[in-house]
Amino acid sequence: MEAVSADWVLPIGGPPIREGTVRIEAGRIAAVGPARELGWGRRYPAAVILPGFVNAHAHLEYAVYAGFGDGLPFPLWLETHISRKRRIGLEDAVAIARLGAAQCLASGVTTVADASFTGASAFACAELGLRAVVFLEVFGADAGQALARFSELRERVEPTLSERVCVGISPHAPYTCSAQVYEACAALGLPLATHLSETEAELEWLRAGRGPLAALANLLVPPPGTSGVRLLADIEVLSPHLCACHCVHLDTEEIGLLARSGAGVVHCPRSNAFLGCGIAPVADLLAAGAPVGLGTDSPASSPSFDVFEEMRAALALGRVASRRPETMPAARVLELATLGSARALRLADEIGTLEPGKRADLTVISLEDTPFLPWEDPAAAVVLGGSPERVVATVVDGEVRYERETTAWHELRQRGSEARSKLLGLSRPSA
Amino acid sequence: MEAVSADWVLPIGGPPIREGTVRIEAGRIAAVGPARELGWGRRYPAAVILPGFVNAHAHLEYAVYAGFGDGLPFPLWLETHISRKRRIGLEDAVAIARLGAAQCLASGVTTVADASFTGASAFACAELGLRAVVFLEVFGADAGQALARFSELRERVEPTLSERVCVGISPHAPYTCSAQVYEACAALGLPLATHLSETEAELEWLRAGRGPLAALANLLVPPPGTSGVRLLADIEVLSPHLCACHCVHLDTEEIGLLARSGAGVVHCPRSNAFLGCGIAPVADLLAAGAPVGLGTDSPASSPSFDVFEEMRAALALGRVASRRPETMPAARVLELATLGSARALRLADEIGTLEPGKRADLTVISLEDTPFLPWEDPAAAVVLGGSPERVVATVVDGEVRYERETTAWHELRQRGSEARSKLLGLSRPSA
Repeated sequence: MEAVSADWVLPIGGPPIREGTVRIEAGRIAAVGPARELGWGRRYPAAVILPGFVNAHAHLEYAVYAGFGDGLPFPLWLETHISRKRRIGLEDAVAIARLGAAQCLASGVTTVADASFTGASAFACAELGLRAVVFLEVFGADAGQALARFSELRERVEPTLSERVCVGISPHAPYTCSAQVYEACAALGLPLATHLSETEAELEWLRAGRGPLAALANLLVPPPGTSGVRLLADIEVLSPHLCACHCVHLDTEEIGLLARSGAGVVHCPRSNAFLGCGIAPVADLLAAGAPVGLGTDSPASSPSFDVFEEMRAALALGRVASRRPETMPAARVLELATLGSARALRLADEIGTLEPGKRADLTVISLEDTPFLPWEDPAAAVVLGGSPERVVATVVDGEVRYERETTAWHELRQRGSEARSKLLGLSRPSA
Repeated sequence: MEAVSADWVLPIGGPPIREGTVRIEAGRIAAVGPARELGWGRRYPAAVILPGFVNAHAHLEYAVYAGFGDGLPFPLWLETHISRKRRIGLEDAVAIARLGAAQCLASGVTTVADASFTGASAFACAELGLRAVVFLEVFGADAGQALARFSELRERVEPTLSERVCVGISPHAPYTCSAQVYEACAALGLPLATHLSETEAELEWLRAGRGPLAALANLLVPPPGTSGVRLLADIEVLSPHLCACHCVHLDTEEIGLLARSGAGVVHCPRSNAFLGCGIAPVADLLAAGAPVGLGTDSPASSPSFDVFEEMRAALALGRVASRRPETMPAARVLELATLGSARALRLADEIGTLEPGKRADLTVISLEDTPFLPWEDPAAAVVLGGSPERVVATVVDGEVRYERETTAWHELRQRGSEARSKLLGLSRPSA
């Protein structure tokens, strides 16, 4: 693709451009501006061009876990989840992750930060051309064992790595990983991600070694006697290399610790709401200067990889928390899902806005035949009216990686459905 | 349509039926049961049959107001809304309402309770075959003027009325209607609807005659010195004939007053969240025995008439409020959107469940090619995975009123778009 044009270009890094064009050269953005200056490229009617969404926290390999145990208390939900995923092997995990990667592309996502239990998502993203940071997950109290597991996974995904698909490490959470494991992971100098302050139950366990998580005894590490944020600050793991996912339960001091550390924070509003965790203090984190991005998490906890519904949830829950409609305007939510996520992942030099020199990662969203036309506010139209059905093209490094009506889904879905049958313990795939 | 079958029938009034059939005779449900007993009807693959959704609070004539003033403070939002709708006449309002009615049908809605400023929705619903209670809106301090306005609107919509489309009256809200207007409306013996306890600003005005609403002086009636719920209880307007929309800000005594009165309550979670109003205390209202239904409100305040996203919002916000994932299980949310709404409107003898003798109002939702197959929990699949794109048929009185891929949308949308141009004050419809 050499140039693309639409009614609006929203570069995020600058003001909206009416009748705009993005010019592409060798996979990078060469110019962004009005079509009357840059000429028209491939033109999409009634559409908006945006930087591709950066889904800053996902688990692609749980793409077919939708509706599993909805409404269960957190420990029981986690137990069901773990027992089910033991039923499948790597090949099925890759089939599922492939469906998840396709769903991300179809939702306008061009980069995913994926927490991967098996490494399956590296294979899926490499195959589908989705940019990815694959955070290989480790667990436990023993640093040597954790690093050995990482090496095993790292070796497994080695053939998939490229400029587009790179590897990080994810010590899962402070209740499943010891301080020693966090320190050993941080010492590798790779991008780091972790689940942090997601539930009240987690805090109760970490501080006092009790509460509902105690039921999961064989998964837990001994409680450090302090919160996860304070623990990671104490051992200097809280740093710009870390991407901290969820961060729902924070006191004022923890918000300050996070913001001063430069760590990225990933807001996952639907996952947090559906699991009954609460609402992350996004406005306070942003005010304190933390780089905050947006993540869908996965259908294990949230309905889908639909970034549009995630953005609407961020907007709705932000206003519920503040009781003010001025909170979280549509343009701010778009920024969370693009530049904010890129900053949280320390990738903002390469992606997150439409600016000359950055990667040509973009998505085209058509609002044709919706009540949002004629245009008034294109940012509101995309956030309030967007859906995967309205994504007409998703482009990574200047290559069209998804096109509505041409991308073939059937086989991806078929394989995903077969894997889901196994997860459910069904003998017949079609059941 | 004589009979319809699917993988699952969720009658709401009873347990889910695997491989179920609904038999229809003369527009009513003749039988509901397993296909092995009743035989197979028209069979939809990978689908669920549900009672049609009952959208218990909408304004169809604002279907193209999407994204107007998103993020504005409530009084300014209302002022923009009012000044814009003065730019169009009845014909445009009907064109917009027709689009809204089509969007409801496409979302699986078979009955709408519409608050109508001009009566336009009666024309739209009659034309599209959507069951409706059209609550004609009145405003002001003077009961004589309000009744005269009602008579004028009632006469206007007279030709559209039938068994399927009937009329009610809606004194708009306690800050725009006097107690005398409420009493005069109630004396008509028609179904009543009103906006109640939607914003904190409303309560501030009603109690003390001050706060942000004061800026709208020419719309307001003098403050009664008490809350809307208490005022309506005092004058005995709070009764089973009343449908109270929103009810976000309620103290314990008001919850008791509402529940004991038998008034219906309509939960509009997205509208309330997007406008920064808060979360209605649905769990408390249900526990107190109030009949609670679900409404989308309109794109003037919320993104769409999409009942599926409204159900997900009800689930998410219910769990945010309680901090427990056990709150608002999917089956409970489905009940709110069907039987709950029917009860709130006092129509549960006729609609809201799939039971022999009731109207054959139903919707067929396909989860084909989604990650929710193979089935585990069909209620969770519909609530978490449903969307208007997954509605394959919507049936009212046994007549197919919407079918995916066959219903013609283009003209409806074209006319809606022209009306939107006028609302925006644009001279060119295509702008």
